[in-house]
Amino acid sequence: MKKVKPLILVTNDDGITAPGIAALVEVMKTLGEVVVVAPDKAQSGMGHAITINSTLRINKVKIYGAKQEYSCTGTPVDCIKFAVNKIMHRKPDLCVSGINHGTNMSINVIYSGTMSAAVEGAIEGIPSIGFSLTDQSIDADFTASKKIVRTIAAKVLQNGLPSGVCLNVNIPKLKYELIKGIKICRQARATWIEKFDERFDPGGQAYYWLTGKFENFDAKEKDTDVWALDNNYVSVVPTQFDMTAHLAIKEIAKWKL
Amino acid sequence: MKKVKPLILVTNDDGITAPGIAALVEVMKTLGEVVVVAPDKAQSGMGHAITINSTLRINKVKIYGAKQEYSCTGTPVDCIKFAVNKIMHRKPDLCVSGINHGTNMSINVIYSGTMSAAVEGAIEGIPSIGFSLTDQSIDADFTASKKIVRTIAAKVLQNGLPSGVCLNVNIPKLKYELIKGIKICRQARATWIEKFDERFDPGGQAYYWLTGKFENFDAKEKDTDVWALDNNYVSVVPTQFDMTAHLAIKEIAKWKL
Repeated sequence: MKKVKPLILVTNDDGITAPGIAALVEVMKTLGEVVVVAPDKAQSGMGHAITINSTLRINKVKIYGAKQEYSCTGTPVDCIKFAVNKIMHRKPDLCVSGINHGTNMSINVIYSGTMSAAVEGAIEGIPSIGFSLTDQSIDADFTASKKIVRTIAAKVLQNGLPSGVCLNVNIPKLKYELIKGIKICRQARATWIEKFDERFDPGGQAYYWLTGKFENFDAKEKDTDVWALDNNYVSVVPTQFDMTAHLAIKEIAKWKL
Repeated sequence: MKKVKPLILVTNDDGITAPGIAALVEVMKTLGEVVVVAPDKAQSGMGHAITINSTLRINKVKIYGAKQEYSCTGTPVDCIKFAVNKIMHRKPDLCVSGINHGTNMSINVIYSGTMSAAVEGAIEGIPSIGFSLTDQSIDADFTASKKIVRTIAAKVLQNGLPSGVCLNVNIPKLKYELIKGIKICRQARATWIEKFDERFDPGGQAYYWLTGKFENFDAKEKDTDVWALDNNYVSVVPTQFDMTAHLAIKEIAKWKL
């Protein structure tokens, strides 16, 4: 009996030509049959945005030698929805997003297009993983990342994931030999102290760039993703899409609204 | 001693001219001093997107007689960040978003610009509420909604909210007398079965509209927001931004990665 190869969907948020997705496709081709559907341009910070007020275009491309490859004018979440419902002949066995150029730890998971694609995979009922490397450079070295990605993806293909849960994997910018291990942890409680960089156009009108400073409220805790990365571990945070604050239901019910 | 009025930040995702935000501002003016910072165009489905690859413009407007009013070229989350960090002289006592034209129950909370603004308010440490009415029409009647909004907002101003939690309030399209009450509940487990409506431009190239059918996995459960709305109740779901699947940490730690 012929063994069916795992079917793997790959996307990212840095756009289909980013070196990070090239590295991810390279690893996935060693694990199964690969379909790539990724944004045609950078979509960082797009969070869980979907395209409903305008339309989508899809273009067939041939870049990485995968079974099928498409660029999409939409967001990372659009890519997952389109792939699963319009391109793929069956539900994929694994959905991976990344490898993002830059970390997506802590509160950043909610702003991240990379992670939103993985979360959307989980919503679609697919075991899903978002991968990020703490190196924003176009010349980032994905050598160590590729080994880590393969280890974790193979394990998820083997074990599956709990219902409603995907993984947020962040990899420190280190040689493989210097990475101390893989920590399963929680997202650190943190926020951004925003600073809007005000500039003026040639006509004298103001415009703004969003910038900010990351503030970690859990700086003393050792069970967080920020701690893991700071201490040369890969962080793996099980991430869910149910946003209900279940513990708060009883408390607010006492209000007798 | 002069009593300081509550400072209230108002935004939405349907854009600053939507009747829903007019209704919301009207109610908030009876509760405190109001600052409006809202998108200059419809931003439905933008989820937790932020603008980092391009710039923001802010324009002062005078529409609703609030203390300060601005339209913003960015997303609902951008509006909250800009308001809190650039416009307001102190942290607001309350942040409200809506009233959305259309429901944001169940899984839709993650795609919703309305709710993402409220979630961002919570990330900023502000008691925050998103309001939605199950009526997408420009002619939606907000009479009943205004009473409900006032009741819930006044209670939140009085009690605050648990740390890290905001409220997702959905109001059924009914006369006030026919609304049975307010239910504190959880988001129903559900998904969208997407269908991409394929069309062809005059040049013969395909483009797609995202459409879909809502599928409720909790149709038999009575503790969900979908049940509440179907049974003529207002649904209130305490909603959190921590996406860690805390219960899955131990399970995945057993993998010995």
